[in-house]
Amino acid sequence: VPSSPPPPTSAGGDGVDERAARVGMVGGGQLARMTHRAAIDLGVELHVLTPSPDDPAAAAGASFHAGAPDDLEAMLAFGRAVDVVTLDHELVPTAGLDAVRDAGTPVHPAPAALRFAQDKLHARRGFAELDLPVPAFTAVDTPEEVERFAADHGWPVVLKARAGGYDGRGVEVVHDRDAAAQVLAHPGAWLVEANVAIQTEIAVVLARGPDGATVVYPVVETVQRDGICIELVMPARIAEPLQQQARTLADQIAQAIDAVGILAVELFVTDDQTLVINEVATRPHNSGHATIEGSVTSQFSNHLRAVLGWPLGLTAMRAPVAATVNLLGADQPVDPRTRLPLALRDPRLHVHLYGKDWRPGRKLGHVTVLGDHPDEALAAARLGAARLTAVTPP
Amino acid sequence: VPSSPPPPTSAGGDGVDERAARVGMVGGGQLARMTHRAAIDLGVELHVLTPSPDDPAAAAGASFHAGAPDDLEAMLAFGRAVDVVTLDHELVPTAGLDAVRDAGTPVHPAPAALRFAQDKLHARRGFAELDLPVPAFTAVDTPEEVERFAADHGWPVVLKARAGGYDGRGVEVVHDRDAAAQVLAHPGAWLVEANVAIQTEIAVVLARGPDGATVVYPVVETVQRDGICIELVMPARIAEPLQQQARTLADQIAQAIDAVGILAVELFVTDDQTLVINEVATRPHNSGHATIEGSVTSQFSNHLRAVLGWPLGLTAMRAPVAATVNLLGADQPVDPRTRLPLALRDPRLHVHLYGKDWRPGRKLGHVTVLGDHPDEALAAARLGAARLTAVTPP
Repeated sequence: VPSSPPPPTSAGGDGVDERAARVGMVGGGQLARMTHRAAIDLGVELHVLTPSPDDPAAAAGASFHAGAPDDLEAMLAFGRAVDVVTLDHELVPTAGLDAVRDAGTPVHPAPAALRFAQDKLHARRGFAELDLPVPAFTAVDTPEEVERFAADHGWPVVLKARAGGYDGRGVEVVHDRDAAAQVLAHPGAWLVEANVAIQTEIAVVLARGPDGATVVYPVVETVQRDGICIELVMPARIAEPLQQQARTLADQIAQAIDAVGILAVELFVTDDQTLVINEVATRPHNSGHATIEGSVTSQFSNHLRAVLGWPLGLTAMRAPVAATVNLLGADQPVDPRTRLPLALRDPRLHVHLYGKDWRPGRKLGHVTVLGDHPDEALAAARLGAARLTAVTPP
Repeated sequence: VPSSPPPPTSAGGDGVDERAARVGMVGGGQLARMTHRAAIDLGVELHVLTPSPDDPAAAAGASFHAGAPDDLEAMLAFGRAVDVVTLDHELVPTAGLDAVRDAGTPVHPAPAALRFAQDKLHARRGFAELDLPVPAFTAVDTPEEVERFAADHGWPVVLKARAGGYDGRGVEVVHDRDAAAQVLAHPGAWLVEANVAIQTEIAVVLARGPDGATVVYPVVETVQRDGICIELVMPARIAEPLQQQARTLADQIAQAIDAVGILAVELFVTDDQTLVINEVATRPHNSGHATIEGSVTSQFSNHLRAVLGWPLGLTAMRAPVAATVNLLGADQPVDPRTRLPLALRDPRLHVHLYGKDWRPGRKLGHVTVLGDHPDEALAAARLGAARLTAVTPP
């Protein structure tokens, strides 16, 4: 069992280490940036291991350590500089994390938990063994294997890269053997899944401490376009028993994989109102962004508290509804930073810009609006997002 | 009239300056630190001019410029590095601000507005001329003048340092001529005021843009001990008509002095339920700390928006009550950072630590609790504060 940082010390004694807790986050993107914002409040020092000082978290002031997660020496030095190591993305080889842990710095999530986020086949197999709801799946190497799977489950099928895929990359719906052959020609290992008839996509975000203490956020409805999450509504507009079922399922997964920190579980609500697990992430997650304003405690604050072994904050909502819309780079150069005077005309709009330069389709930020009614909050958030990103703003 | 930054530009054109807005704040204390937190959200670059990179805002990641506000060259270089200059404390000589403005960088608040916060005699005279409610006052140099004033207004009287006093320093209640003589023996200019019979102390925080657009926060009740603000309750527990009167008065002052950015107006509610102006601050203020969680838009975000000439955010509350308790250094060394695991046992507690080392009486942070009832929220905030600062925590 990984140890958590030492308990509170009585102050004033000899040799008492009176200083800020230091959390090391591998990765310096927007998730680390928003974690830094939460770290400032708690007086926690956030350190990030990331290639460039211009990366979003370093630019916002997290302590910058130059390096990549596949650089074992950089990982070990990073581990020595902090009290606990965590991460803001999945693409972290377990070798470095193992080495950090073996050298005495706790790593949360543990590599064994992280593997459920890194390796889709491992996750499918693990959840299936636990009798948790997953789509029919199998590992495939050849178009013939895909065809055999489709004979049982019907076309189309879904081909997924076993590792490395995110934001829709590495997920392909294929309608025949030729299309399958084209996908499998790409490098990497693949699995095939039955194509689930999806009514709604939802996500459950929870925080779990090293002692197993868990707090679960309200279920979030997620809207995807081209495999990228574009909108969130919290709480999800699905029946309460289904919400409860989703929260219980996420809690079961957290216990099963011994997640520590934020765990996000993406689920499909099928046409016949059953739940199917899509993917899990063992870190702060896009589907938790509405918690910054919508919840008493944000996912970023609770991630820090969880990995430090501190008590977790309340996940209750501060308004009936929170709607979040992601800011994706337009097809032509539009810098949301130049659009703030327009977007802020709506005095309710909460803007989060990630400090990134424009690129088409790039996640540049998100906006959140709290309200009494989902349609109204969503409309306001969409208007704000369009004002910040559209080539011709409304 | 100081200009505001350029309006939103259409993106993609030639020579368009696509980058973050840069706000320069003179001072790098906790107010700048919490402003940096708001700047991260908006994708605004906060720059601070402050002596040490260990000062709270620089430690949190605001761009650090070494320098003091009485260093004209440092001020001019700072002005050149940013789009607009503002401040997190009053002890900024107007010479530097004038020079920055003359060199082409807007300064908000303007030195003429700042003077109302710097010079208590100037403020008293200015507000009296406007027929705004101030206590009886006059400038004094000698114990004889104090005695003459007391003959008209009664002992005790209040002696105030004309400039430089804050947090209770430079404010002395004296009961006779000898005590007055002792105070006046200290260097600096003094004024004497009638000792108002205070029932409650309150503050009104508002944000005002260069165009005069103003948003006013709910009235805050402030509890002072030894001249230092120790607790806030928002909204204040005073009659609604008095609250409205206070908000109107603050708005009048903002217009009269042409404040831009946050203006905080500290007021006395007298025993006979009238309002008397105590002091004003032309910057984010301790009495606005409850706005971080309690209001839709924090004072720090609205300060940035105001000095940038951007639309202001909603000041409506997100809960019926917000209670804030300041964390003051205990008499013995107690580092609140080591007490977080204890204090966070209350999952509602919002903690803000300023990254400062312990010193007796030093403001090390604050905590806020939202709730339905002031007594309950205040009790929870007090418990949290005691757990973070008391030598023997409850």
